[in-house]
Amino acid sequence: MRAVQVVGYHQNLEMKDVPVPEITGPHDVIVKVGGAGVCRTDIHILEGQWAEKSGVALPYTIGHENAGWVHAVGSAVSNVAEGDKVIMHPLITCGLCRACRFGDDVHCENSQFPGIDTSGGYADYLKTSARSVVRIDDSLEPSDVAALADAGLTAYHAAAKAARKLHPGDRCLVIGAGGLGHIGIQVLKAISAAELIVLDRNPDAVALAVSIGADHGIVADGTHIEQVLELTGGHGAEAVIDFVGEGGSTGEGVKMLRRAGEYHVVGYGENIVIPTIDVISTEISFVGNLVGSYNDLVELMALAAQKRVQLHTVKYPLENFQVALDDLGAGKVRGRAILIP
Amino acid sequence: MRAVQVVGYHQNLEMKDVPVPEITGPHDVIVKVGGAGVCRTDIHILEGQWAEKSGVALPYTIGHENAGWVHAVGSAVSNVAEGDKVIMHPLITCGLCRACRFGDDVHCENSQFPGIDTSGGYADYLKTSARSVVRIDDSLEPSDVAALADAGLTAYHAAAKAARKLHPGDRCLVIGAGGLGHIGIQVLKAISAAELIVLDRNPDAVALAVSIGADHGIVADGTHIEQVLELTGGHGAEAVIDFVGEGGSTGEGVKMLRRAGEYHVVGYGENIVIPTIDVISTEISFVGNLVGSYNDLVELMALAAQKRVQLHTVKYPLENFQVALDDLGAGKVRGRAILIP
Amino acid sequence: MRAVQVVGYHQNLEMKDVPVPEITGPHDVIVKVGGAGVCRTDIHILEGQWAEKSGVALPYTIGHENAGWVHAVGSAVSNVAEGDKVIMHPLITCGLCRACRFGDDVHCENSQFPGIDTSGGYADYLKTSARSVVRIDDSLEPSDVAALADAGLTAYHAAAKAARKLHPGDRCLVIGAGGLGHIGIQVLKAISAAELIVLDRNPDAVALAVSIGADHGIVADGTHIEQVLELTGGHGAEAVIDFVGEGGSTGEGVKMLRRAGEYHVVGYGENIVIPTIDVISTEISFVGNLVGSYNDLVELMALAAQKRVQLHTVKYPLENFQVALDDLGAGKVRGRAILIP
Amino acid sequence: MRAVQVVGYHQNLEMKDVPVPEITGPHDVIVKVGGAGVCRTDIHILEGQWAEKSGVALPYTIGHENAGWVHAVGSAVSNVAEGDKVIMHPLITCGLCRACRFGDDVHCENSQFPGIDTSGGYADYLKTSARSVVRIDDSLEPSDVAALADAGLTAYHAAAKAARKLHPGDRCLVIGAGGLGHIGIQVLKAISAAELIVLDRNPDAVALAVSIGADHGIVADGTHIEQVLELTGGHGAEAVIDFVGEGGSTGEGVKMLRRAGEYHVVGYGENIVIPTIDVISTEISFVGNLVGSYNDLVELMALAAQKRVQLHTVKYPLENFQVALDDLGAGKVRGRAILIP
Repeated sequence: MRAVQVVGYHQNLEMKDVPVPEITGPHDVIVKVGGAGVCRTDIHILEGQWAEKSGVALPYTIGHENAGWVHAVGSAVSNVAEGDKVIMHPLITCGLCRACRFGDDVHCENSQFPGIDTSGGYADYLKTSARSVVRIDDSLEPSDVAALADAGLTAYHAAAKAARKLHPGDRCLVIGAGGLGHIGIQVLKAISAAELIVLDRNPDAVALAVSIGADHGIVADGTHIEQVLELTGGHGAEAVIDFVGEGGSTGEGVKMLRRAGEYHVVGYGENIVIPTIDVISTEISFVGNLVGSYNDLVELMALAAQKRVQLHTVKYPLENFQVALDDLGAGKVRGRAILIP
Repeated sequence: MRAVQVVGYHQNLEMKDVPVPEITGPHDVIVKVGGAGVCRTDIHILEGQWAEKSGVALPYTIGHENAGWVHAVGSAVSNVAEGDKVIMHPLITCGLCRACRFGDDVHCENSQFPGIDTSGGYADYLKTSARSVVRIDDSLEPSDVAALADAGLTAYHAAAKAARKLHPGDRCLVIGAGGLGHIGIQVLKAISAAELIVLDRNPDAVALAVSIGADHGIVADGTHIEQVLELTGGHGAEAVIDFVGEGGSTGEGVKMLRRAGEYHVVGYGENIVIPTIDVISTEISFVGNLVGSYNDLVELMALAAQKRVQLHTVKYPLENFQVALDDLGAGKVRGRAILIP
Repeated sequence: MRAVQVVGYHQNLEMKDVPVPEITGPHDVIVKVGGAGVCRTDIHILEGQWAEKSGVALPYTIGHENAGWVHAVGSAVSNVAEGDKVIMHPLITCGLCRACRFGDDVHCENSQFPGIDTSGGYADYLKTSARSVVRIDDSLEPSDVAALADAGLTAYHAAAKAARKLHPGDRCLVIGAGGLGHIGIQVLKAISAAELIVLDRNPDAVALAVSIGADHGIVADGTHIEQVLELTGGHGAEAVIDFVGEGGSTGEGVKMLRRAGEYHVVGYGENIVIPTIDVISTEISFVGNLVGSYNDLVELMALAAQKRVQLHTVKYPLENFQVALDDLGAGKVRGRAILIP
Repeated sequence: MRAVQVVGYHQNLEMKDVPVPEITGPHDVIVKVGGAGVCRTDIHILEGQWAEKSGVALPYTIGHENAGWVHAVGSAVSNVAEGDKVIMHPLITCGLCRACRFGDDVHCENSQFPGIDTSGGYADYLKTSARSVVRIDDSLEPSDVAALADAGLTAYHAAAKAARKLHPGDRCLVIGAGGLGHIGIQVLKAISAAELIVLDRNPDAVALAVSIGADHGIVADGTHIEQVLELTGGHGAEAVIDFVGEGGSTGEGVKMLRRAGEYHVVGYGENIVIPTIDVISTEISFVGNLVGSYNDLVELMALAAQKRVQLHTVKYPLENFQVALDDLGAGKVRGRAILIP
């Protein structure tokens, strides 16, 4: 089969002919790839940023946002069957460690990450585990939802965690209306009645946010902190979800957070720097957010099936992988780029 | 001022001329009534059903679902000012007992209940406490929201409690699409992405439920249990909210509840009868629901301001109180009857 | 190896010579049994009470409370190794269904129950799954903790669930100070500072309860409801954990439960019969409790290692299984009977 | 009556003769002071550190950790009566704002703070509100518990918040075994079965911590991070409660926190500085902790009545206030200094 592989860092990906993966264990699942998301992380991999962290041996097949159809299953697989449409949780988890046993499979002590440290989805077929496949609704197409597998799942996880403490009428400030923020806004509208204030530097992103349900859109123009405080009676928002995490975002964000509020960290890049006295005197929390769990992905797929979460995609045939990466690098992709084998 | 009073049980209400209530304590609030809901409980009061329980001395002014404008405030009132549009929480609570201190003011150990055990709102003015008045949005009219003060608040409380454990894609079965169910459905749609299955004996009520957002409407025709099981993969719903509680509702409802599910009891009339072995082997819970707290009412008013919760009302001038009660008794009121002083 | 089997209902168990179980799947674990609890359920099995429910084919090896040493493991087992001391969770669960993925493995849609519907632990060796074995502390002996695997785990689960809502100074009423109640009391003392009131018909059981930490022991002598109300300021306890569930226990128990309280159902036998109006006007909940999860068992073993939960046992060589059962049936066992292969 | 007052910053307190406070409002409570804690904050007040923040007009009576006997009550006070032994919550709160209505009275939008911005307890009598007095058990003396009113309450609040997520066998690292840490350790032992690891620079403090229940005591000697990691299987503790918050504490503390763990900030002084990528990749949280709520104080007094939380005190007659402050400043007070009028 075809597989697009990392053959060396600081050089282009190459399409190779490799054997179709085979079932070797009882929980194995082979998926015929229907769509593989092209992510900025893929560019970082090629730049060698993940080389040491992942320890992956080259060459290997890249692609960590995948969906498709079940092609073959191991003897102990009971949750999916051949032909099922599925999306793949980004991690292959053990199911045995305490974190897995609590449903926090993201903190599995023995996980693998296809596309990062083992073969991924820029290929005709992908091997994964029964613990990683989520059946999707008949009305959904793998190529339409693939990009929800990682980026979307992270946004869902943070938004759902924030929503648990938000009451109708509370205010939630979303910093960053890009790819993740876009999903986060849709999720928040679906599962909470908090008033959404969305902040971004890009007026187009703000306009888009308002069009998909944000109650207030604010362009970061230097007066934005005062604007948010005004919208929140001078108190700040009960929750902030920061999809940016760089360029001064956290320092500003804290100023727009209400006493006893939760600051959800999703985007990253800069340091959080805050006096402990400010943390205790206002009794705020900083809450880290990683990608969501398997069950989170099931829930996100329920929202997708209800058409409450939608994603704009640009599709490329698998063989045009380089075009897709180039377009992404050049900022030419609106929404998410998807490779179709 | 005018006040419609209970002058004796098993006889009609009478309109009297009584003094306007006055501020006597620092937390007192006098409200000019803008709308008073006419409730089936009012009919039960006249039948003497509450006589012993409330111990109220006759004559007294009836009416426990009230909204209006602040007319005067005591010296220590800081949360509202003269002229504010307000809805009244049904209870006057002490703010000192442990329940009040946890925000569970409904379980206040020293509460009063205007319209039930002290003067209510079928009148030009009503005396209450700073702890009972919730400011409402400019866009709302007291006469439009008054009926949310008690019936609506109960529905909100139950729906919000159930929603806390519902994930996107979970199923919630609402039994009874009458007044409370109607509100409950709107609340659930606003704060959760659970799939709503609504069950009622009345096809019109079912149709209305679907029109306001229920995902599935089922007429209780003898095949309804199977229909619900079919919609839930044979498992039953993760939550049941039973706004009926009589006529066999609970016995049937439990059959449509999934293992580890929560059965929310809101309507009442019959006994719950269930073998303890069924409770433990399925690990279900039965959860009682009384009226909501003050903060619940604030949240419900936020939903009302967002137009996510709306109520059909039929308005009568205060002096036509007897017509309103007669219409209610005769089943002629669609939505809720409201008296306008 | 030796295995004590059910060869027919309404007749005695028989010891047979059967093959030692072998590893056939990657998650299989073979345990050399160190102790197998003799439980009243075993007697019920022989009476045929479980025949239809379990559908087990005779003959089969009985025994569902097991601990021992790992003898062999399948190729994918990463959480235990040969020689490890382990206790076994009573269920073998799939790890793939939504319940398993949330850590609620007790509600697994595809579970097996060794000793009930497949081969159990009255034997030299037992076959189970990596998902069912919990390593125990070096200071613990399998034969000392085996009986915590099911009865103890149920008590832990209920006590831990109740403790989550109990604050220091709240009152928790424990109905029934037998085997489960005994564990429940120790767990509650370890993880909460609620005041424990323990009620039992048997004065010796009450005395024992007080000796292991109950703050108040009450003999059910007809004045017990008043005694409990007096101890709780007339309000009743914030939580009731009912380890009895028969003989009028639930009807009485509800009278000793405070408004907004939780009634934990653990013991079973009778029906709960309660007017819906009582459930809603007091806003109480009834909470079913089944056996605990795998993680619950890990936590219970932590308490056992800390010596905060201890169990009195009477040990019998495996070949004396009939004596153990007869002693249990005759009420001669203080604590729990354990078979030692 | 006698009252010890701040008459100017950077000069000594002075004892004055002032009128006994009188009831002027219906919720007023006058307390005859039985004990007033002498706190390092009092020294900071005299240094002028709070002058601008509190805006208090001089002279005023200092002392913010108070307990005593109810001397007189306003007409609407229903929770205490003359002669009751009480401890005072540090804040006088409104009971009307949303935070108060949720039981988070610490975030009251209209609070007063006796001893900081209004008259405090270094005096014969103190005026407070019904919302601030907690009745204490007959077995407790005001002078023994006064110091729990603020410092102890803060420790209780943080420990109780952490305990909510700790399971038996989880590890909780307590940084700082001084006054607050001392209370925190006792609270954690009373309400959780987590394994407590206590870290301090002072070997005596570590020894004391172990004597009151810490499972492991570690002296911060440069090898302490490795020691903690070793005790936690290399993972770090599920929760860290940092009672220090200065001198590099937070930077070190995070290294001893497990993935998905909670870092409770209580002590303050330094900045938290952490890369956002570390927060998201480990999914940790930083949780601010202020003083506890009124209900927290009720619970802490329940633990005190159970003798599960005890405090060493050194008592001085009120007129010796200068000696007490001098002793405190010189580090000569073991436990807490208390003034007895």
